[in-house]
Amino acid sequence: MSLPDSLLVTLRSHFPEASLATGDAERLAYAYDNSRRNAKPDAVVFPTEHAQVEALVQACRAHQVSVIGRGRGTNTTGATVPVDGGVVVSFERMNRILRIDPDNRFAVVEPGVLNGDLQQALKPHGFFWPPDPSSAPWCSIGGNLACNSAGPRTVKYGSPRENTLGLRAVAGTGDGFRCGTYTSKGATGYDLTRLLIGSEGTLALITEATLKLTPKPTGLRTMRATYRDVGAAARAVARIMAQPVTPCALEFIDDVALKLARDYGGDVVPLAGAMLMVEVDGEPDTLAGAMEAVARAARGDGLEELRIAETVEETQALWSARKALSPAQRTISPNKINEDVVVPVSRLPELVDGIKQLSKKHDVLIVSFGHAGNGNLHVNLLPRDEAERERAHACLAEVFALVIALDGTLSGEHGIGLVKREFMPLALQPSTLQLMRNVKSAFDPDGILNPGKLLP
Amino acid sequence: MSLPDSLLVTLRSHFPEASLATGDAERLAYAYDNSRRNAKPDAVVFPTEHAQVEALVQACRAHQVSVIGRGRGTNTTGATVPVDGGVVVSFERMNRILRIDPDNRFAVVEPGVLNGDLQQALKPHGFFWPPDPSSAPWCSIGGNLACNSAGPRTVKYGSPRENTLGLRAVAGTGDGFRCGTYTSKGATGYDLTRLLIGSEGTLALITEATLKLTPKPTGLRTMRATYRDVGAAARAVARIMAQPVTPCALEFIDDVALKLARDYGGDVVPLAGAMLMVEVDGEPDTLAGAMEAVARAARGDGLEELRIAETVEETQALWSARKALSPAQRTISPNKINEDVVVPVSRLPELVDGIKQLSKKHDVLIVSFGHAGNGNLHVNLLPRDEAERERAHACLAEVFALVIALDGTLSGEHGIGLVKREFMPLALQPSTLQLMRNVKSAFDPDGILNPGKLLP
Repeated sequence: MSLPDSLLVTLRSHFPEASLATGDAERLAYAYDNSRRNAKPDAVVFPTEHAQVEALVQACRAHQVSVIGRGRGTNTTGATVPVDGGVVVSFERMNRILRIDPDNRFAVVEPGVLNGDLQQALKPHGFFWPPDPSSAPWCSIGGNLACNSAGPRTVKYGSPRENTLGLRAVAGTGDGFRCGTYTSKGATGYDLTRLLIGSEGTLALITEATLKLTPKPTGLRTMRATYRDVGAAARAVARIMAQPVTPCALEFIDDVALKLARDYGGDVVPLAGAMLMVEVDGEPDTLAGAMEAVARAARGDGLEELRIAETVEETQALWSARKALSPAQRTISPNKINEDVVVPVSRLPELVDGIKQLSKKHDVLIVSFGHAGNGNLHVNLLPRDEAERERAHACLAEVFALVIALDGTLSGEHGIGLVKREFMPLALQPSTLQLMRNVKSAFDPDGILNPGKLLP
Repeated sequence: MSLPDSLLVTLRSHFPEASLATGDAERLAYAYDNSRRNAKPDAVVFPTEHAQVEALVQACRAHQVSVIGRGRGTNTTGATVPVDGGVVVSFERMNRILRIDPDNRFAVVEPGVLNGDLQQALKPHGFFWPPDPSSAPWCSIGGNLACNSAGPRTVKYGSPRENTLGLRAVAGTGDGFRCGTYTSKGATGYDLTRLLIGSEGTLALITEATLKLTPKPTGLRTMRATYRDVGAAARAVARIMAQPVTPCALEFIDDVALKLARDYGGDVVPLAGAMLMVEVDGEPDTLAGAMEAVARAARGDGLEELRIAETVEETQALWSARKALSPAQRTISPNKINEDVVVPVSRLPELVDGIKQLSKKHDVLIVSFGHAGNGNLHVNLLPRDEAERERAHACLAEVFALVIALDGTLSGEHGIGLVKREFMPLALQPSTLQLMRNVKSAFDPDGILNPGKLLP
């Protein structure tokens, strides 16, 4: 497949010189994302203005050529892999922070702004934007919005859907439009803003976002609690979430993950049946009371050790186990399958137990950790060879079935992309999927935006 | 207009006895809402089960008859007036609280549950559902969701869109479906939940909602601050919103409203250029610090008096001015035009000044008050006779134009309904409106759900 000459001529008129690439090297560089899936686009464009994106979609629609939006490709689901060829739109040069308005608690940004760069820019104003994926220094706001990417802070501050006021975008029809407001409240028509967030570039390409800012608390305190077993830790999570002080991080690490981290990170990592890392934030004079409320809830049957950091060094030491986890996993398996299922918090014990059984049944190493305050568990399957890799895939289907049986859902913050679309009918009724297809047609009647993603 | 016999026979089979009404008295009782608009439906049904709503929409679709969902008719926009005739679905008997799950911070309710009844049921569990329209004792959750109805607490806790996890509904196609999750986080496909919220029954009829619960803070403290003029008060609002302690209510009352309240309520109501009522909530040991932070921000040029209530009696006394406002307005005009425009917080001084000028220009009494922390102002035009009523309508168009010029929007919490749809093109581009129409067709291809509402 390659692009028709007439389309290339049109594209060239809107994307001069290095803003359009068709060489093999560039096509290869934009063929993959963090999913390790791979498919070469026919061309890559680098817009710097909204009008270019409109022209692009209109031209591609006229030629029935696919258009795939791309932030920085840090997603793990293949959502930015151009499986059908077509044109990848990399927003990396559309990276201006257009406005920071602390009085009105919003910032207006282009989609290519990196999450970490935005946080730095907000710091002097005393604000932050809550979504905090672990890839924050390298991932773009546009990608965060496309995938509804979240992180540990979501338990207190919400995901991009709760932290975005309005958008500018280009639909699959080729029409540019604005939706949402510059205000923190609105009841003027349908909520297209939230509809676009998490739609993985299948409805429209976001060219500008008005983000809701939150005042940055000046204090933070960290606690680590270890438990006899995962059930005891999960019950502590439910107790913590049932009292009024919501922590700004409530992370869970299972026994397998702890052992792995200890093998890698040494005996600064505790051995236990499970571990919780908890952070509370707020104004300094409220922190002691808040931490005490959370610690009270964390205590209970099965608690082994509870430590509250008093210094920066102690805080770092407490986090060392969690930090050792990612490199430790890499030493085991280069082919980690990284899922991010969610269940209601009280079902966490059943989920963790069920996963242990599936790990045994399929003889696949699985470590579980993640954002327990949201019931969002990263279930990482770590196959060490090809045979185990095949078993891992069989195991995965049963993990999803278990999650659905526990009233959970397929993804908390990674999205669906390419790798989970076949499982969508597990999570959603046929009628719901049909309505989603209708919505897709309403925005993208010819199906040119990111085909082969999200919907089965 | 009356319903075809064959449709009536089908409806009767699904709605036995008193669950279907076609008598004049019942049709009249469901002809109006709080907008004072009026149009009789051909029939009223009272479902108690989801399956009945599916059967209803399928039957009405087959006969191309309109279906108008209705909570308790407390909305002010005519959103529930059956302008085209058809069948009104009153959800008042579908009013069970199906589940309260404090461990997972959600409640599952039928749409007819009253907001106030839900709050009472949640109290023993230590939780609340944040949306708090002033009609809370009499308005239904279904109506709150349909209109994205909010209230003073929204400034801290968000509107229904931020406080709903999932829905069950029946689309205009006649298909029942579920969307959203039982978890506090999700990235599994398009966000149909938020799309339905605020869609005023034009896309689907909600038959069940999974509501996100928030732990109820055990402490509350109230402050009243009066200012030399509205500009000084509005600047204080911006200062309060720019520091880390977000109040759970930040209400503004202008000089005209204060005078009106004092005429009615006596000298317990202060005379001033403007007044702010501020509340902070939290755990008791954090309240003093939080109130001090807010009071610090409230102080500044133009402050006249700042009082913090120390007792329940003092709190009630401080709120007396605000409470006197509604009855006071009724003594002036039975034909109040009650708008709820929103602007970014820092534009409030311009909005309030502009409204004063329009009040003079059109010679119409206007009082302004409302949820200043969200920039959400209730602009109440109080025409005293027919001539003034006509002038009020001319004035209203200019109020909306002013709001849009200040980067605001038509409605913060009342919605669009019948009365504001003609103004939608002021707020939204043609391309945005076209996408909304496409979305409408995606859910309701024959346009039978609540025709004549929301979209122009």
